[in-house]
Amino acid sequence: MRKIAIIMGSDSDLEIVRPAANKLSELSIEYEMHVLSAHRTPCAVASFASQAYDNGFGCIIAAAGKAAHLAGAIAAQTVLPVIAIPISSKALGGMDALLSSVQMPSGIPVATVAIDGAANAAILAAQILALSDERLYNRLKEQRIEMEKAVLEKDRRLNN
Amino acid sequence: MRKIAIIMGSDSDLEIVRPAANKLSELSIEYEMHVLSAHRTPCAVASFASQAYDNGFGCIIAAAGKAAHLAGAIAAQTVLPVIAIPISSKALGGMDALLSSVQMPSGIPVATVAIDGAANAAILAAQILALSDERLYNRLKEQRIEMEKAVLEKDRRLNN
Amino acid sequence: MRKIAIIMGSDSDLEIVRPAANKLSELSIEYEMHVLSAHRTPCAVASFASQAYDNGFGCIIAAAGKAAHLAGAIAAQTVLPVIAIPISSKALGGMDALLSSVQMPSGIPVATVAIDGAANAAILAAQILALSDERLYNRLKEQRIEMEKAVLEKDRRLNN
Amino acid sequence: MRKIAIIMGSDSDLEIVRPAANKLSELSIEYEMHVLSAHRTPCAVASFASQAYDNGFGCIIAAAGKAAHLAGAIAAQTVLPVIAIPISSKALGGMDALLSSVQMPSGIPVATVAIDGAANAAILAAQILALSDERLYNRLKEQRIEMEKAVLEKDRRLNN
Amino acid sequence: MRKIAIIMGSDSDLEIVRPAANKLSELSIEYEMHVLSAHRTPCAVASFASQAYDNGFGCIIAAAGKAAHLAGAIAAQTVLPVIAIPISSKALGGMDALLSSVQMPSGIPVATVAIDGAANAAILAAQILALSDERLYNRLKEQRIEMEKAVLEKDRRLNN
Amino acid sequence: MRKIAIIMGSDSDLEIVRPAANKLSELSIEYEMHVLSAHRTPCAVASFASQAYDNGFGCIIAAAGKAAHLAGAIAAQTVLPVIAIPISSKALGGMDALLSSVQMPSGIPVATVAIDGAANAAILAAQILALSDERLYNRLKEQRIEMEKAVLEKDRRLNN
Amino acid sequence: MRKIAIIMGSDSDLEIVRPAANKLSELSIEYEMHVLSAHRTPCAVASFASQAYDNGFGCIIAAAGKAAHLAGAIAAQTVLPVIAIPISSKALGGMDALLSSVQMPSGIPVATVAIDGAANAAILAAQILALSDERLYNRLKEQRIEMEKAVLEKDRRLNN
Amino acid sequence: MRKIAIIMGSDSDLEIVRPAANKLSELSIEYEMHVLSAHRTPCAVASFASQAYDNGFGCIIAAAGKAAHLAGAIAAQTVLPVIAIPISSKALGGMDALLSSVQMPSGIPVATVAIDGAANAAILAAQILALSDERLYNRLKEQRIEMEKAVLEKDRRLNN
Repeated sequence: MRKIAIIMGSDSDLEIVRPAANKLSELSIEYEMHVLSAHRTPCAVASFASQAYDNGFGCIIAAAGKAAHLAGAIAAQTVLPVIAIPISSKALGGMDALLSSVQMPSGIPVATVAIDGAANAAILAAQILALSDERLYNRLKEQRIEMEKAVLEKDRRLNN
Repeated sequence: MRKIAIIMGSDSDLEIVRPAANKLSELSIEYEMHVLSAHRTPCAVASFASQAYDNGFGCIIAAAGKAAHLAGAIAAQTVLPVIAIPISSKALGGMDALLSSVQMPSGIPVATVAIDGAANAAILAAQILALSDERLYNRLKEQRIEMEKAVLEKDRRLNN
Repeated sequence: MRKIAIIMGSDSDLEIVRPAANKLSELSIEYEMHVLSAHRTPCAVASFASQAYDNGFGCIIAAAGKAAHLAGAIAAQTVLPVIAIPISSKALGGMDALLSSVQMPSGIPVATVAIDGAANAAILAAQILALSDERLYNRLKEQRIEMEKAVLEKDRRLNN
Repeated sequence: MRKIAIIMGSDSDLEIVRPAANKLSELSIEYEMHVLSAHRTPCAVASFASQAYDNGFGCIIAAAGKAAHLAGAIAAQTVLPVIAIPISSKALGGMDALLSSVQMPSGIPVATVAIDGAANAAILAAQILALSDERLYNRLKEQRIEMEKAVLEKDRRLNN
Repeated sequence: MRKIAIIMGSDSDLEIVRPAANKLSELSIEYEMHVLSAHRTPCAVASFASQAYDNGFGCIIAAAGKAAHLAGAIAAQTVLPVIAIPISSKALGGMDALLSSVQMPSGIPVATVAIDGAANAAILAAQILALSDERLYNRLKEQRIEMEKAVLEKDRRLNN
Repeated sequence: MRKIAIIMGSDSDLEIVRPAANKLSELSIEYEMHVLSAHRTPCAVASFASQAYDNGFGCIIAAAGKAAHLAGAIAAQTVLPVIAIPISSKALGGMDALLSSVQMPSGIPVATVAIDGAANAAILAAQILALSDERLYNRLKEQRIEMEKAVLEKDRRLNN
Repeated sequence: MRKIAIIMGSDSDLEIVRPAANKLSELSIEYEMHVLSAHRTPCAVASFASQAYDNGFGCIIAAAGKAAHLAGAIAAQTVLPVIAIPISSKALGGMDALLSSVQMPSGIPVATVAIDGAANAAILAAQILALSDERLYNRLKEQRIEMEKAVLEKDRRLNN
Repeated sequence: MRKIAIIMGSDSDLEIVRPAANKLSELSIEYEMHVLSAHRTPCAVASFASQAYDNGFGCIIAAAGKAAHLAGAIAAQTVLPVIAIPISSKALGGMDALLSSVQMPSGIPVATVAIDGAANAAILAAQILALSDERLYNRLKEQRIEMEKAVLEKDRRLNN
């Protein structure tokens, strides 16, 4: 099974990004985590992205804030699916990162999840890999059922 | 190879959604196109989504405007990757559909592309399928190179 | 008299939702409170909503944040009046939940109150029930007069 | 059965408001339609609203644009359910009317529907009246089924 | 010289409104301060506003948050100049109060100052009264010069 | 009676500003209309504003779009009341002009009216002058009553 | 004197960008105009930007819409001043391009001008070059004076 | 080499502005720092700006919040490049300052950097000066390489 890359634009994003790593671990999906910036290390980003398929990656998760170009810069260098996590920031609450991530021009898609939605980025990556991995597909279905049960259990407790 | 489903919330979205279908045709990817609404046909949506994997789909593209719940309603019933196309509308320019699509709660991701970004939804779906289909992967890489050449050709023409 | 249902998408919303329950208690209106999620427990939501009328409910209050589909998902399954409380969240201050709740497509209305406006959701539900319950109608009128007096009393105190 | 009032802030809103009247007619619900402004005719608004219950109304629909105070001004004078239709305008696309309608202070709820959502305002009013009118309740359920069938028929036609 | 009225929609706004009172005191302008709500005490508001001119007021300052109708409700009942202070709130940062205050329909103006801009509301009221009070006009001019000097003094200190 | 100045930042704003002039004419208030820009003619603006009181003006109306500094630049040079008309523009619908006009720092108020609200700017100016001109005050009261009657007449016609 | 580069992300931006070229011609500043996309031709952009200084450029103007990464991608590869023109688009009016351009992370500045502000981008580039070119500096000062005179002439005409 | 001016609208902005001064010091660029307000000290601003070129300045950085007119007021009086730092504030997160800074009318450009982006303002100023100072140009290039190394070092540490 192909690996997942989690790239964050700054190591200050680590705490928000970590749930993505945790979720992948929980699903026994191999991943690499990197600090690479579209603006401060453009060559490393281009080089990582353009070789990602050949290096065994199946999906790249990119987390960045403000003028969040990281996912787009990666998507420009690969035809692997690229998932953006817009990171919230104090001034505009993440609206800047959301629009910078999602409003990509025709030809170069980026799959954007919710602001600070790191766990969902990992689940989406897992769903993508699961298309060719039935065991992972079943694991995702089980997690859904567990999640459903957990909510129903909370409902029961609220009513006791 | 698995098929793609393109679901639109209203047949009035057809003209904006059509580039997704065209792009999939161009890439020789089989697809089905449906008009189904999260609010007007909730049972048909749930039934389609929950059986989509078993019916051979690999990815579901959902296009809706305003309080765009279609992609989320589908994602709630399947662990297939679900791609949202937020449709613009007159009053708020698509900001309502964008936020309704992308701000999904933890556990149920939706891969959101740009407002009215139908072609990108199809390319993203193709990128996902391409992970287990090397011919498609190569076709996507070729299209990128063609796209690059087309821009450079436009640049050349501008300077003559 | 019919009962009111208060449904919240996550038990983390409980503190914001509680004023709705308190207000209904204060008005001696019977209610049930549930944790049910449009995305994590779609079947339980559909089942609850589609049987709500037959189970004696007169109005359903749905509280959810971010891509707040809960009220819309309920409204899709019943013709009872459905009231949405958009829940604020850190990144976008509740604008996402507001637009996801209020911008419903033609045919499936949702009655949206203010962001985090739980007490008003309960009062609105009571106003709806009061149409066929004169005692409740009079109780609501009295509360208005008490509220008016309380403000005028504050005005008096400010000027002493 | 109680009547519905449809109040619009300006006769220039008539074309956007008309679907509310049409929908009520279609459901055989009696209604009155008025042009009254919270700012230009405050006394007429207060007088209408404070006597609406005694005059046999069950619900008041108020449509206004920009700093849309009409629904709030009515709600301040009655404990009948008040439904707001925020009217879009050129400059801010209706965001001003939406926020002016929905963000009511605790104690005085307004049930807000989508920007320019006149038909939904009427359906919501009908749902409220239907709580004490089983024939209307059944008529609303039938309309839902017809609406569902219409979408599924469109889906069928798209695939032929 | 005519008096100024400072009306706030809720006594929770007192701390934000107080600089208006302080500024008027500083300028030796007589004022009254009231807690009156467009929605909870509509009659008291209408009555206060419609008699304000005859009661010797020259200008009414109205402070309110969220769906801030107070200034508009007052302006609907008087042709005195009405000044709105939109009050910020947690969810939308005061954008709701700003749009509800400023986007008034043609015929009924409200003079809106900055979100939470209580001091400026008082200065504006003073500027209005100063048109027929040369001593006040001169006092305002002096304050400007003092303000200018204070800034230049800060600049000097920064550079030492 | 003092005169009113209407300043617009660009002669392309003339059509939107004209209702202000018409309204002042209708009220027999003397006015001057100028094209002066905070950015292109800063000295003319400063000179006009700083002499406006001595030149017999009682109020200055400033209309500008985008980064609408005109009203603020005038207010910085006079203690006359300054009224801003934010002009809408294609890209952001006037939100830029609104925020640039209304969010003034403490000490220098600007009285902002609705986006493109030229008539209201003139009425507000008239209300200010009317504080020391009882005939104008009465004329404004009459116009209110005429306006009220016109709405009620429209209501009557709608119901025939 | 160094040259200016005008880069646009798509040839569909040409009409909006052209005033930049016209302004540079008018000021006798040499420029090159290119169609290059951060996403479709990332290598050409990187190569152009990294060699721009050595190729005699003094400033790079980048015009792009939606998730406008072009200026940022260029700025990542050069320490020349980079000026962004955010291009408006239908859905969000250019707010997406503005935030994607201006909200750059610390270390990699982009000088952003108004949405669709092509002429200003050129004037800013000229102002930068003028620091080491007194003739250009004087030409810019003359243009300012001409612009001022033109406004004052319009003012005069309006008053005749 | 020409000096840089850093002007802030209020000394309360000092902590946000300081990184600009620090960055200039680090690059051995001479600067002056001033507290001057477009609204409270308009004459001092006009006088400073109009003499800045003759006083040896090469670039003016202006930091202001809310209706941030400082950069525009300076730009109106000089043809030196003017850089705006929009300062965030509680109510609207800096959106007001951003739009007031960046949306300048044609003819008077302001180079706007990110909200609270003081360091970037200084780097941009340095890039402008570096066009005629090869040593500074080389220093900026070195800083870029150091910044790149720092990110790559953080990436290495994350993976150990």
